[in-house]
Formats: sequence, structure tokens, C-alpha cells
Amino acid sequence: MGKRGAILHNATMNANVHDSIRAVQWHGDHLRLLDQRKLPAHSVWIDCHNASDVTEAIKDLAVRGAPAIGIAAAWGVVLAARGGEPLPAAMAMLRAARPTAVNLMWALDRMKSRLDLGADAAALQAEAQAIQDEDLAANRRMGELGAALITPGSGVMTHCNTGSLATAGFGTALGVIRAGVSAGRIAQVFAGETRPWLQGARLTMWELVNDGIPARLVADSAASHLMKSGAVQWVVVGADRIAANGDTANKIGTYQLAIAARHHGVKFMVVAPSTTVDMATADGDDIEIELREATELLSMSGTRTVVEGAEAWNPVFDVTPAALIDALVTERGVIEHPDQAKMQAVFGG
Amino acid sequence: MGKRGAILHNATMNANVHDSIRAVQWHGDHLRLLDQRKLPAHSVWIDCHNASDVTEAIKDLAVRGAPAIGIAAAWGVVLAARGGEPLPAAMAMLRAARPTAVNLMWALDRMKSRLDLGADAAALQAEAQAIQDEDLAANRRMGELGAALITPGSGVMTHCNTGSLATAGFGTALGVIRAGVSAGRIAQVFAGETRPWLQGARLTMWELVNDGIPARLVADSAASHLMKSGAVQWVVVGADRIAANGDTANKIGTYQLAIAARHHGVKFMVVAPSTTVDMATADGDDIEIELREATELLSMSGTRTVVEGAEAWNPVFDVTPAALIDALVTERGVIEHPDQAKMQAVFGG
Repeated sequence: MGKRGAILHNATMNANVHDSIRAVQWHGDHLRLLDQRKLPAHSVWIDCHNASDVTEAIKDLAVRGAPAIGIAAAWGVVLAARGGEPLPAAMAMLRAARPTAVNLMWALDRMKSRLDLGADAAALQAEAQAIQDEDLAANRRMGELGAALITPGSGVMTHCNTGSLATAGFGTALGVIRAGVSAGRIAQVFAGETRPWLQGARLTMWELVNDGIPARLVADSAASHLMKSGAVQWVVVGADRIAANGDTANKIGTYQLAIAARHHGVKFMVVAPSTTVDMATADGDDIEIELREATELLSMSGTRTVVEGAEAWNPVFDVTPAALIDALVTERGVIEHPDQAKMQAVFGG
Repeated sequence: MGKRGAILHNATMNANVHDSIRAVQWHGDHLRLLDQRKLPAHSVWIDCHNASDVTEAIKDLAVRGAPAIGIAAAWGVVLAARGGEPLPAAMAMLRAARPTAVNLMWALDRMKSRLDLGADAAALQAEAQAIQDEDLAANRRMGELGAALITPGSGVMTHCNTGSLATAGFGTALGVIRAGVSAGRIAQVFAGETRPWLQGARLTMWELVNDGIPARLVADSAASHLMKSGAVQWVVVGADRIAANGDTANKIGTYQLAIAARHHGVKFMVVAPSTTVDMATADGDDIEIELREATELLSMSGTRTVVEGAEAWNPVFDVTPAALIDALVTERGVIEHPDQAKMQAVFGG
């Protein structure tokens, strides 16, 4: 990116249009990504000119959120095709950028199918655009479906960031929250900080405040105390990969929220496009969980917070078993209490 | 403190004697406190010359940990007596410094009892020293009792800081861990970060690393994923107040750990001196939970991390119901599955 000559932009954003923020933008001959590591303090845009730029943006979390990663990777293939890069190598590189998000594999497989049918750069570009457009449409549909499950006046808790920033726009879990607030079904939102990257604190609160949605940030570990108070009726989260039996990999801490929700009789909803479903993965035990550097826990904003010599264990995803999920919402509909049979009926495989 | 003319010291600490670090030290005519906000980067000592200095150190978290707060407050009464301050006002001020830690109230009541019997400054000083010495002895005893419950080779998870820094020395939950490691019962320790103040990351890891105890830091929200892996057999935590039925107030996140532990069949141990037990509080619903400033969640190391205009909910304690506690360890012995009858048998009231 920077060191490969990508151009960085500082832009002032219109605070009133955040629900239509597009963090992944095709600009005719390059891909422009909103650098999510710099938010909310700075809105910095990264221009990607080849597949390496996109791979690095995914690895370094400049772009994040399973759907957004898939869309960015599709555009990475377009950039590779336009630049005359060897496409199998470019796709292998993109595929290896992050292991847990299945949307990444799905988008690359879809691009490869087109390629295998002889698509040229223009046809690949049309395919990437279709992937992006379909994601946005799916999010709007999931918003309606998920919001309809929520009793008017409810409090909702969410985790990580699943909004416009993590998708083609509107969001998955945050799309349900947006739709639910619009419909008067959600009166109050609580966002967990989401250590160690603070996606909830930095990104979700940014989207919620800019949309004028009543929201409060809470420490991840305060969720149970909050649920006990009765202020939360639903936990609504996204997903990075959903196995054939409904087991769901999502940001670390999601599983703990699901346990706490069940303990308190709070309902638990997973919202993700069908591209997140991986019927080739039998159950959660087969999902590879990404471990990231210990330094993400040992430092804060670049300042070392923990004594030298300390070790840390830093898994960034976990698996919530289907048994703890009350509703799985995709653009194909709502599956209550998902299991293998119900999943197969909707997603085949 | 600083603005009241307290003297600050920068000291190099002997890295090999951390289990005997004394964070609260009486120096003949003033109280010296290790400023826990500055650890682990800096070992800064604060000298307190009157009850206001001590009150501010407690309020501002320069001294923290329920037992350490109680000991510091006792010395605050000594300073007030030596300085000719009106003692009822000084004690009222100290008592109001933090609402949840019952050791604070207990230590002040004990000092008041001596005062009511006509104690002079020298007698008050002897009483404060006794409170401090008894706490250290209680910790050593609890270390033996708690460690004996743990099967050799176990993994243990802890939360917040309950070590030498939080007590007169050795620690409560961390004392059990120290004793358990010495006895070969504990093979691996996992410390939760403990947002928002990061007592686990900053303080517990500092004590563990300096003692050479095998330890890893984990995000608070990774605890359930860790437990599912089978690496943890016991969660061992301290307490700020224990009600007459065994319900236990402790650092925010403790309740969530207890729910996760029960879900995974992991045992849950509370370790606290009997001075933490408040038989006048019927159950957890009667315990006042301190809410602190939203800014503790909205900024990180002084840098704003969350969008302007955002709100946060920042309770710093929660209550773990007795039903989720497998063992309550005080210096008087072990109570398995505490309830009101068992508590009354040991603590009367």
C-alpha cells in the first residue's frame, strides 16, 4: 500500500450520510478503501492498484468485516486482470490473506468461475460489481427480516462492527439494528468495545452516533451485568463463517455473549448473507480460528501497556454453537434454532 | 496529593521480590503508596501526609484492591489523628471514597472502635499496623487453603489484580495462585485484561512475570473460548464485598466469568479475607455498584478512541450469585457452595 506507492487521501466525511458510507469503492481503474484502522479520528482513504495492495489491506485490517473482505478481494482480482498479473497466483495470495472469513473464499471462487468461462477484465469487473450490489441488497432484506423478530421498544446488544464499514453498505447485524430503530422496534443499543481491536468502540459507535441512534458503549465484560438488569432483549451479531449445522464463527467474545444471553433468557440472533454459509464445513470444530500477534494485547495505541516479557494468547474469532442461536437471518429468510436439517433445506449442499 | 504538596518518588524496584512488594507502606510519619496507575511502565511512590491525601489516592485509583484500600484508610485515620484533624470528618471523607469495597468500611469501623475507647495517635497507629499485618497473615493462610483445592497440573484463570498490589502482600486470589504454583498444583495461569482499567494486563501480568509464573494475558471476551479448549480447570478471583448469602461483588466481568465457568464445568473460587464479608448485607441486590465516568471507556491512555458525542455505561463491579461459586476461601476456612446457613455458621451476624 503506502510503500507500494498507493495514494492516501484525507477526506472530510458528511456526518449525516453514514448509513450510506461505502468503505469499498471502485473508481474506474483502482479500488479505494476507507482505512478502518484510523477511524474515528481520521478518515483516510487507501487507493489499491493491484492484488498485492488489496491483500495487504485485508491482512493489516485496513479493510475488515467478512462481506467487505470478500468484495475487496473480488476487486483485487479485477485489478490483477487489468494489470496483466498471473491470476492464479493473485487469487491464491488474496485467499490466504485471512483464514476465517468464508466470504473471501466464496468471492474468489465466484470470480474464478467467471474466469474459467473465459471472462475478460470487463466481465470480471461486472462480476465484482454484482457481488457488491448483491451484498447491499441482501443487507436491506436481512434488515427487514431481522427487525421483524424484535418486540417494539427493545434493547439490543451488538459486538464488533457489522455496519456499512464491514459490508457493501447498511450492514448485517447493524443493518437489523438500523431497520429496527427505523421501525420503532429498537429503543436502545449497547455496543461492546470488542477488544483487542475495539471495532465496537471505534467503528460501531461511529456509525451509531452519526446515524443518531441511541447507543451506549460497554466493556465486553459488562455484558452479563447489563443483561441481568433487563435492559437487553436481543443480542444481534454478524458472522465470519457459518458451518453446515449452524455453528457460527464470529469475532472473539461472541460465544461468551451467547452463553450469557442464554443464561439470562436474552435472545441471540446471527445476521449474515448466505455467502457466509459454508456447507462444506460440517461444524464449528472444523473452522480454522485465526490467532493474531500477542502484541495486539500487549500494547495500546502503540504504547506498551504490559510488562516486558509477558506472553498473550490472542485468538480473534470463536465459535458459537448452533444450540445457542435463536435465529439465523440471511437474505433467504429466518431460520429459528438452526440445525443441520434446517440449514440443508435452505442452503443445500 | 501532588497539588496538596505530597512528594512523588521514582524508585527502581527489585524485580525478584515482587511477591513481597508492599504497595502500602507506613514510614513513621507519613504513608507511602505505590501509584498503581503508573505501573508497569513506572514505579512512582506517593507520600500522603493527611486524610485528604489518602482519600484522593483511593478515589483516583492510585491505591486499589479492597484490602489495600482498607489498610490505606486505616493509616489515613492515623495521619488525621497525628495532624490534629477533626476525626469524625476525616473518617466520613475516607468512607465516601469508594462505595463498593466493604473492607474500607470495616477498617474505618475498627479504627473508630479504638477511638471510642480513647485511643491516642500511638494506639491508633498500632491498630493500623495490626490491620495490615493481619491481612498479610490471612493471605498466606488463604493461599494454602485455596491451593489445596486445585488438582496438580491445572490451568487457572484470574481477573483484575488481587496480588501484593491489592493487599498487604502476597495477595488473595493471586496468593492462591502463588501458593498453587509453588506446590506444583498450577501449571499455567491466564489473566484477563480487565477493561477498562486493565488491572489484569498492567498489574497482574507484572506480578506474574516478575515471579516467573507461566502466564498468558487474554482478552476478557476470550475467556469462554479458552475454557472450551480445556486449558482452564479453575477460575480464581477476589472480592470487594461478600453478602450474607455468599453473593459476591467483584470487578466488572467476574459475573460473566462465573457464568462461562459453570457452562463449561470449570470450577469457580472466590478468595477474600473475612473482612470482605458483610453480614449486614442480605444479598447481592443490596450491594451498591459503583458507576464510573464514561471517559474511562471513551479514551485510551489519554487518547480519545471513540467518536465525539458517544455515550458509555461504565459499571466497575458486578455481583456473582452464590449459586455460581464452588468455593469461598477466607482465612477462616473453605466454604463449598456457599449459602446463607453456611455463611452464618462461619461469620455469625
